[in-house]
Amino acid sequence: MASTIRPATAADVPQILIFIRALAAYEREPDAVTATAEDLLRHGFGPTPFYFCLIAEHDGTPAGFAFYFFNYSTWVGRPGLYLEDLFVHPEFRGLGIGKALLQRVAAIAVENGCPRLQWEVLDWNTPAIDFYSAMGAEFLDSWRNVRVSGDALHRLAGASSDKPGAAQ
Amino acid sequence: MASTIRPATAADVPQILIFIRALAAYEREPDAVTATAEDLLRHGFGPTPFYFCLIAEHDGTPAGFAFYFFNYSTWVGRPGLYLEDLFVHPEFRGLGIGKALLQRVAAIAVENGCPRLQWEVLDWNTPAIDFYSAMGAEFLDSWRNVRVSGDALHRLAGASSDKPGAAQ
Repeated sequence: MASTIRPATAADVPQILIFIRALAAYEREPDAVTATAEDLLRHGFGPTPFYFCLIAEHDGTPAGFAFYFFNYSTWVGRPGLYLEDLFVHPEFRGLGIGKALLQRVAAIAVENGCPRLQWEVLDWNTPAIDFYSAMGAEFLDSWRNVRVSGDALHRLAGASSDKPGAAQ
Repeated sequence: MASTIRPATAADVPQILIFIRALAAYEREPDAVTATAEDLLRHGFGPTPFYFCLIAEHDGTPAGFAFYFFNYSTWVGRPGLYLEDLFVHPEFRGLGIGKALLQRVAAIAVENGCPRLQWEVLDWNTPAIDFYSAMGAEFLDSWRNVRVSGDALHRLAGASSDKPGAAQ
């Protein structure tokens, strides 16, 4: 019984989408995923990828994934690594696969000179919070996450041509 | 008295660093900025930029900036726009420049097919929170921000070669 971790290839896109949907269901948003395999293929495996992905396998069966990209720290002046998704299929939990994925992502951050590895966790996800704490993570609870999307984003964007105030 | 917004060029890097330092001081972390002009030049104006920047000017004087990059939504299957820094120098506040910068960033998000514009705000920064609310923003307060950095990151990365559990 052996687990391995490898970078995803274009052939893994259908499996990546299965993992994304399973994670969304775990996060109580089973209908939130509108991404298609075509989207993931185009954005992850073209000339300028928007994301990177690791696949964990257990005895050759896909067991989990880590989905990440680079952000940027203006304070440190370095790219940082942002972990968008980390997921291990329920039947493969307790084998150290989640820890091994997180460690591999941390190693990729260090190899790329990133001073930070960041991600988000839902406040009710106590098992994950405990796991991350044990891995040496800190929680930046004074920072609130803000989002504009949908109609509000288009209203905000459309207003830019109105030149409000003195600004053009 | 007219304000304008334009994309930053390599020649703006010293001014970008001034804005970054001023924002860190406002965020009560005046000593947190270790980034250098060389860092910002290399990462923002090379063949594969890690970030993008807008400069707002008022009567030709630098008045504020917006510093952003692209992230990725696995749920929507699209790049999103992440606003790392938004800052208007105190002497230029009240002229609509912050709003105009945010609107321009929203327009860039829409032009790039991004379903979301996201950023963070400190929980004590009530003026900013009120401003963002008025712009149609929502606050994702059930998500906690997690970070591993410094020694903890290197420990986590180094452990990846130990093959803990069954995972390699």
